[in-house]
Amino acid sequence: MEFELIDALHARAKLRRGDVALGIGDDAAVLDVPSGTQLVACTDTMVAGVHFSEGTDATDLGWKSLAVNLSDLAAMGAEPLWSLLALTLPEADPEFVDGLGRGFAELAARHGVALVGGDTTQGPLSVTVTALGTVPCGTALTRGGAHVGDAVFVTGTLGDAAGALRLIRDPGPVTRDPDKQAALQSQSTLFQRMHRPEPRVAAGRALRDIASACIDVSDGLLADLGHVCTASGVAAALDADALPVSAELRAQFDEAACLGFAMTGGDDYELCFTAPVERESAIEAALARAGCHATRIGRIVAGVGVLVRDASGDLIETPNAGWEHFRQ
Amino acid sequence: MEFELIDALHARAKLRRGDVALGIGDDAAVLDVPSGTQLVACTDTMVAGVHFSEGTDATDLGWKSLAVNLSDLAAMGAEPLWSLLALTLPEADPEFVDGLGRGFAELAARHGVALVGGDTTQGPLSVTVTALGTVPCGTALTRGGAHVGDAVFVTGTLGDAAGALRLIRDPGPVTRDPDKQAALQSQSTLFQRMHRPEPRVAAGRALRDIASACIDVSDGLLADLGHVCTASGVAAALDADALPVSAELRAQFDEAACLGFAMTGGDDYELCFTAPVERESAIEAALARAGCHATRIGRIVAGVGVLVRDASGDLIETPNAGWEHFRQ
Repeated sequence: MEFELIDALHARAKLRRGDVALGIGDDAAVLDVPSGTQLVACTDTMVAGVHFSEGTDATDLGWKSLAVNLSDLAAMGAEPLWSLLALTLPEADPEFVDGLGRGFAELAARHGVALVGGDTTQGPLSVTVTALGTVPCGTALTRGGAHVGDAVFVTGTLGDAAGALRLIRDPGPVTRDPDKQAALQSQSTLFQRMHRPEPRVAAGRALRDIASACIDVSDGLLADLGHVCTASGVAAALDADALPVSAELRAQFDEAACLGFAMTGGDDYELCFTAPVERESAIEAALARAGCHATRIGRIVAGVGVLVRDASGDLIETPNAGWEHFRQ
Repeated sequence: MEFELIDALHARAKLRRGDVALGIGDDAAVLDVPSGTQLVACTDTMVAGVHFSEGTDATDLGWKSLAVNLSDLAAMGAEPLWSLLALTLPEADPEFVDGLGRGFAELAARHGVALVGGDTTQGPLSVTVTALGTVPCGTALTRGGAHVGDAVFVTGTLGDAAGALRLIRDPGPVTRDPDKQAALQSQSTLFQRMHRPEPRVAAGRALRDIASACIDVSDGLLADLGHVCTASGVAAALDADALPVSAELRAQFDEAACLGFAMTGGDDYELCFTAPVERESAIEAALARAGCHATRIGRIVAGVGVLVRDASGDLIETPNAGWEHFRQ
């Protein structure tokens, strides 16, 4: 059975790359790493009941399991090339595997990523993807390069996925939009953001020569920017009013809720990065070419931690961290 | 909590390599692939209750989760360099993580493998390891190179882990050894083979310029050699009497049981390979330098499948395949 499942996945992820000397079907894949580049590698697991609900659509799961890894590569400024997919399933379920393969392949095709290996085992539902990519030697973005005086930016909008999760958990009359059709439309956009995050691959590449530090926002802005601050030995001061929030999120939640989601909601998969203030127009131009927009949300200062101030300059009470995997 | 667990693992897997430009602690690892080599990549998941029992010692699990992946790299003739470890745990358990990290690090140190990334999530216990290595360009061993007339070889001995599993499931008076001390000793050896398989890394490298095809025996000899035959478009004829079985396995089980374990038992992690008959002495010499021995067990013939004959030349009835992950 295992081989048929792998064959089904393989058939779905048809994409071929010339640099795959040997793909799925042997003990391991053999890959040609372009000369002048460094390999960039990451792995991420999604577990049923923890990272997604049991009833999650298989195609969404396939997409997202790759997206969260491509987001990590994007945060390094890497070009994604190859992936490996380790799937654990309670029972052989060809329909589920087909759907998962379809969602995975859809995102993989969009970024030219080949599925080169994997494993299928029986057990509680989970998906572990390993993504491999490259950067020109010495150009990888890291968490450790932020300097006092740098500006802090974030791509896209924050908190949409957290808003979607709230709508699922509490589907009461939360909408503030009197137009029911418009309300359904904005909800649908938030759900799309949760289930089908778009990893900022082109933006990451565009930032390679501009940003001083970069991270992807997966556990919440404050937590992830906190990692940048720790790694760089600096602190960050953010302006609450500057945090980019989508019209769809504002249509569903009041201002305080939106701010909460933007600061600590997980699953955004936007890039938070730092750069010298004078590079702002270069950043705008580079990101525009990458089909993306970034908002300046604060600055790097001396100290420890991440502070958020409101329009009057008063400190906003913030929780310590974003999404954590072991809540006890 | 997640970060502390990862830190604990990180501290355990202390090994540093000069080709790790950036290891654990950022969104992804950055690695220098030696010029003139191809990257070799594989991933394998071990799930509690499927690949190991819930009560398995954490250090054994850490060792084995890496070993099964290094075995896949060995089958390609690759030199292992780096690994990523995705661990899913029901609850934050520092003692378990410490043990797992210790076992993982012990084997990693033996083969000079650096732990460069990973993920720790909450959920039903499972471990997914990705192993990365290299081969000189164009030298990877594959399943597809066996030719009619080639001899078939296997390293080490077969069936020990399957014997250990039988002893666990049926701990009755199976020993045939009247010396109780010796019986305990042989049982202990079989358990060691099950819990701490030694991936044949040096043997795989030594075979790179000699073997025509190679696979690691993880699902049972007949099943895995069957994959070589399918990929190469040939068949194999094996001599039952030639299958190498350890003295420890013989001490515990009768001849028929030993043969069954050797043919279809999983978890051997030996290398099964093919080569022109006239290379036998070159193979012996190369493997001796790699601290390993191989036994000639049959030959590649035209046709489909894997046949086994007894000493009189009669066909032995064999099951279709070895260990499968979805038994329905």
